[in-house]
Amino acid sequence: MDPEEFRRAGHAVVDWIADYWATLGQRPVTSQDPPGALAAALPAGPTADGEPVEAVLADLDALVAPRLTHWQHPGFFGYFPANTSGPSVLGDLVSAGLGVQGMLWATGPACTELETVLLDWLAGLLDLPERFRSTGRGGGVIQDSASSATLVATLGALHRAGGGRWREAGIDRRYRAYTSTQGHSSIEKAARIAGLGSDGVRMVEVDPETLAMRPEALREAIRADLAAGDVPAIVVATIGTTSTTAVDPLPEIGEICAEYGVWLHVDAAYAGAAAVCPELRWSHAGLEYADSYCFDPHKWLLTGFDCDAFWVADRGELIEALTVLPEYLRNAATESGAVIDYRDWQVPLGRRFRALKLWFVLRWYGVEGLRAHVRAGVALAGRFADRVRADDRFVLAGPHPFSLVCFRLAAGDEASAELLSRVNATGRVFLTHTRVGGRYTLRLVVGSPLTTQSHVDEAWALVSEAAGTVLSDAG
Amino acid sequence: MDPEEFRRAGHAVVDWIADYWATLGQRPVTSQDPPGALAAALPAGPTADGEPVEAVLADLDALVAPRLTHWQHPGFFGYFPANTSGPSVLGDLVSAGLGVQGMLWATGPACTELETVLLDWLAGLLDLPERFRSTGRGGGVIQDSASSATLVATLGALHRAGGGRWREAGIDRRYRAYTSTQGHSSIEKAARIAGLGSDGVRMVEVDPETLAMRPEALREAIRADLAAGDVPAIVVATIGTTSTTAVDPLPEIGEICAEYGVWLHVDAAYAGAAAVCPELRWSHAGLEYADSYCFDPHKWLLTGFDCDAFWVADRGELIEALTVLPEYLRNAATESGAVIDYRDWQVPLGRRFRALKLWFVLRWYGVEGLRAHVRAGVALAGRFADRVRADDRFVLAGPHPFSLVCFRLAAGDEASAELLSRVNATGRVFLTHTRVGGRYTLRLVVGSPLTTQSHVDEAWALVSEAAGTVLSDAG
Repeated sequence: MDPEEFRRAGHAVVDWIADYWATLGQRPVTSQDPPGALAAALPAGPTADGEPVEAVLADLDALVAPRLTHWQHPGFFGYFPANTSGPSVLGDLVSAGLGVQGMLWATGPACTELETVLLDWLAGLLDLPERFRSTGRGGGVIQDSASSATLVATLGALHRAGGGRWREAGIDRRYRAYTSTQGHSSIEKAARIAGLGSDGVRMVEVDPETLAMRPEALREAIRADLAAGDVPAIVVATIGTTSTTAVDPLPEIGEICAEYGVWLHVDAAYAGAAAVCPELRWSHAGLEYADSYCFDPHKWLLTGFDCDAFWVADRGELIEALTVLPEYLRNAATESGAVIDYRDWQVPLGRRFRALKLWFVLRWYGVEGLRAHVRAGVALAGRFADRVRADDRFVLAGPHPFSLVCFRLAAGDEASAELLSRVNATGRVFLTHTRVGGRYTLRLVVGSPLTTQSHVDEAWALVSEAAGTVLSDAG
Repeated sequence: MDPEEFRRAGHAVVDWIADYWATLGQRPVTSQDPPGALAAALPAGPTADGEPVEAVLADLDALVAPRLTHWQHPGFFGYFPANTSGPSVLGDLVSAGLGVQGMLWATGPACTELETVLLDWLAGLLDLPERFRSTGRGGGVIQDSASSATLVATLGALHRAGGGRWREAGIDRRYRAYTSTQGHSSIEKAARIAGLGSDGVRMVEVDPETLAMRPEALREAIRADLAAGDVPAIVVATIGTTSTTAVDPLPEIGEICAEYGVWLHVDAAYAGAAAVCPELRWSHAGLEYADSYCFDPHKWLLTGFDCDAFWVADRGELIEALTVLPEYLRNAATESGAVIDYRDWQVPLGRRFRALKLWFVLRWYGVEGLRAHVRAGVALAGRFADRVRADDRFVLAGPHPFSLVCFRLAAGDEASAELLSRVNATGRVFLTHTRVGGRYTLRLVVGSPLTTQSHVDEAWALVSEAAGTVLSDAG
């Protein structure tokens, strides 16, 4: 495909996406087809000779789009959002077009430097502690996701906890990781990958009201492990848990980590974006204790998946933990010590030029545009919560400090599960669920820039109406 | 940014890329600026209000493009190629525009099913063993890179070698990994991440001529470890090593792995693409022994980074090793057992819709188009090697079965290093180096679809001319 063919086909694909976005609100949020519907519609293999792009676009319309869960839909209220935006798509397009692989500074100087600078920009935007800036001993890097950030933090922590022996000897003692019972599943997965085993993770109990980690319980767990001869390596605290957006008390947790010399990683995957707004920065109090921190611009900051922003307070420690330097990667810039080679900050060797999409987003929206987006989400969630609160068929499952509202039917778990099923079956909205204190609980989280007051009001109307039929069917 | 703003800005960005590609051959392949040049040119943070896309494109031209290593340049002959193509960029653009996060089948049915089907297509295209197809117990998945594929294979192997205890207990014995001294650095990195430590990797010696693993040495290493009470977990064999594209003898290695019950992972990151051509499939003989296999369409199959294709013979084993299922991810499709949730096949939880770029590439080029691309690379490398062979100032460092040529100056390491430095300083081409048998060796690998005979002839002219000045300066 030569540049002129690309230009022509590229315009057609851009138009296809613009049309998709323009019609998104009219589509069902999720597919109702059974498993295998798309697979059955595809041929057994590629053709011998090539086909034009138009043929693929036609199949996108006919075969693919109807079998998607539309994450960018204004009625998508599930999981945590993974929202993108026009500028993000365009930044990613430039990245794809340049095709730069920035494993080393030398393989993409601008790829590396733009990322370092933008992570400093983001640190400023969120008012993160100075220790995370690249101007000191710290620095930021883009990971694919908070899962990988947790894994990388775990590896840095093992390197520190092992006193230098872990790189060569591996897991030769019982290292332990700590998180609350509300911590994300990726914490257990990271521990398993790193060789601690699921048994190596201590699930610390939470306050039954706030669902935040109990610092005293953390201290007890660390003490018990030390007494047993185990080695506490890392505590993962959460700002905005996946289940209910609970906020762990960092000031108390941080003091305990400092006292016992344990690496503190703070996972703010979703709620970190809230810190662009000064009035929401209370959630980040105590972050100065953290050895590492991450949040996902791809969740609530209009940057397409994947883009997790991860910072460490001591980049030297992380690089030591992860570096392996074969001859074929040696180069003058690396040996000068004057550059960052981001391959040593992550699991894979290769890397895309992901800073571009972040650059496009930060420049298109500006600081105030990003704040307006977060504030709109918080306000819309508040509006929905008000409806729930005013209706005595429902119970609000806790506070809603960000843009997630957790609620259930007072009638019980079965009714709540049936409610979720009926609401999602309308195809107009998509919500997910969790369990809070053992109770089946619906989650509605606002994130899409397309979601307006009318969409939230429609969601409430559908929930309220479905509740009526669920309760009358049950009655 | 509304759909109409996106349409207008999107056309401008497509045009920017088309113009970049049209002028790529006239740019220097690498930047000559010192570290920090871009960082110093950027402001301290984002502006309060947004800026138009045109402002970002202007900065791309003025600040970013001049500080890149241009991986898609026709004179880029370094590392292994990471080539993209127009259809790949467009497939990736659709993926960014849809913004689907396919961690579960339920969060993107088409995202999951297209990937499964395309990995079956690719398995057919390379004529991989039946055991890797999803129609049986196997199946394929897209990883970001071969590094991650090696890590995931290592985790599956640990789960098997631990007899089910590894998931909970972690590394509680001395598990061992084996690769040749020529194996990729990501194998040691994976072992370190997985908690085996660098000491857990046995670097098996190679045949001094072919640089392929010596099966007898592998057997001895496994026996010695067993005698010491260690647990052999995984052998990573390579088809096309990074240093010289050596091919390990899979039939013999496979028999040893079968005899001792050790997981065999085959890393064909670069050379796997060669198997689209029947005449190059000799390199894959013995693959029927493998428990897992990967190659990178993003290296030599015109699909932009990141796209590593990874297959396992027993998907159940892999899923068991990696799954963690919290309440907030439970859904009816998962519980039916009828679907694939690719989150359990990889390190991170989230995932992009990467199958789209592969789909665009396979359909645009067709089988014969892909074969023509690989054959062109092999022929151009052969043409360069012929020039080297015919010039007695040079030594060919070994065979060149694919599109990599390794060579050095007979005058010695210092002269060869100086040659590389002078050739790269022209800005017309970019080559990298390795060490073969301890000797400093230049690597020239052909991969870009833009590279033609005239580019390879120019590369030879530059190498030959620089050799003249290096040798006369030294003389």
